[in-house]
Amino acid sequence: VAAAYGFALTAYHSKAKKKEDLMKEIEKSAEILRKTRPTAVNLFWAINRIMKKARETSGDAKAVAKAIVEEAQRMADEDIEVNRKIGEYGSKLIDDGNVILTHCNAGSLATVDYGTALGVIRAAWNQGKKIKVIATETRPKFQGARLTAYELERDGIPVTLITDSMVGYVMSKQLVNKVVVGADRIVQDAVINKIGTYNIAVLAHEHGIPFYVAAPTSTMDLNHSSVDVVIEERNPEEVTHLRSERIAPKGIGVMNPAFDVTPMKYVSAIITETGVLSPEVLKKLHGSLGR
Amino acid sequence: VAAAYGFALTAYHSKAKKKEDLMKEIEKSAEILRKTRPTAVNLFWAINRIMKKARETSGDAKAVAKAIVEEAQRMADEDIEVNRKIGEYGSKLIDDGNVILTHCNAGSLATVDYGTALGVIRAAWNQGKKIKVIATETRPKFQGARLTAYELERDGIPVTLITDSMVGYVMSKQLVNKVVVGADRIVQDAVINKIGTYNIAVLAHEHGIPFYVAAPTSTMDLNHSSVDVVIEERNPEEVTHLRSERIAPKGIGVMNPAFDVTPMKYVSAIITETGVLSPEVLKKLHGSLGR
Repeated sequence: VAAAYGFALTAYHSKAKKKEDLMKEIEKSAEILRKTRPTAVNLFWAINRIMKKARETSGDAKAVAKAIVEEAQRMADEDIEVNRKIGEYGSKLIDDGNVILTHCNAGSLATVDYGTALGVIRAAWNQGKKIKVIATETRPKFQGARLTAYELERDGIPVTLITDSMVGYVMSKQLVNKVVVGADRIVQDAVINKIGTYNIAVLAHEHGIPFYVAAPTSTMDLNHSSVDVVIEERNPEEVTHLRSERIAPKGIGVMNPAFDVTPMKYVSAIITETGVLSPEVLKKLHGSLGR
Repeated sequence: VAAAYGFALTAYHSKAKKKEDLMKEIEKSAEILRKTRPTAVNLFWAINRIMKKARETSGDAKAVAKAIVEEAQRMADEDIEVNRKIGEYGSKLIDDGNVILTHCNAGSLATVDYGTALGVIRAAWNQGKKIKVIATETRPKFQGARLTAYELERDGIPVTLITDSMVGYVMSKQLVNKVVVGADRIVQDAVINKIGTYNIAVLAHEHGIPFYVAAPTSTMDLNHSSVDVVIEERNPEEVTHLRSERIAPKGIGVMNPAFDVTPMKYVSAIITETGVLSPEVLKKLHGSLGR
């Protein structure tokens, strides 16, 4: 949706008169936006949707610009509706008294509003289920500590913060009933999500704890498999520095992949706005897509 | 050894003339030292060893004080020797070209010198094996980033720093051949070590990667099992704050266990100064101890 509004800004500020001149500017914006991040697929979904809308709109540049702005707004509205539906479906998997572990931020701060994984938690809470949440801090960017803990605390949903290294500990102490996380991309054989998700999925599997992924169908990319996915490698200073303070010595190697790959065997189900899909259903769905 | 030197300081500064007066001061120091940390067993081993030495030494306070100082020095010397032997035995498990993942700091900064897990790595490196190390940063205290990366970089051993959340990622990319970690306590059925060790052990198991624990026999507490172990819970501000800056909202729950429990089924072998013990050997050893 942020990418869609990027196009909306280009269109709104454009001085083009003819559609073809605006389209050149829009193409340039698309090129810039495509390069921002390689891993998540919603970005490309949004770019394609806006481009399609622009191409299909007839009239002068003004008419096309108006269509682009309206499409971006529609996508924002739809995103909230999609998240509410994900919450509605996903909440059926949550029982009264459950403790749910979540990773990174898949809440209203990561979406337009309501959230995917936090949408499931919010919906269950709003149904009166007395749930609790364990939020991983999510190194290196601390989205769990800074965003998820903030959102849940603000909503009055009990939340306990842990470091990523404590996931096995809380599971072994039987303090976790279910895991719910978001996704940046879902391919045939795997879920790609924030770095650390795969650790949690393996640990959940080992402890017999259901591992649910909550994500809109715009995250699905079933014509690709995990070998096709490029994992974004981010600035090493996110690992070696806290704000501007260096905590690790100079001269060492550093890895900073932003996402990891969780094979479908660790995923209990995927919660989308169209319902809850088991990995088996996904496989069949994929079959019907002709590959 | 630090506890032993605590006693040495008490003895050295004591104005007692009679042994029984010094013993009262030593008993008081023992009481203080015992309360410092509940989990690691070497602490209690050291306290008991110094107390025994003091009790068994005849003569006046001066003679006992001298014996305590000498015993502390002996323990420091022995620790280095023990670590060198751990390194020697452990290095046989390391092959040329191996990439070894380690957690927290089990190096010269965590021992008197040389280190346990890093002793194994140092010994292999000094034998000319071209190894590389992946060090986890080890939240919340960053011992991996601040200490292990520093030690290895200083010794010229190639080291790559990752966050704890990246362990599964590097294993799934087949970038890790072996895991070597230290231990704070080894009981009948489990290894107790820095929080995050259990995550790594489960992930290593899932990927078929050997998981080795390097620790002196003073870490062994085979008359107890994991249910007897008290896990130290530390200040929540280690999780919610970076130095003095708050990163998580007020009013949330926080957990900060300093250690976790890795069941023996995930441990490939334990490297001690007396040789390499498989969990099966440990079980038999335990049997011979009469329980």
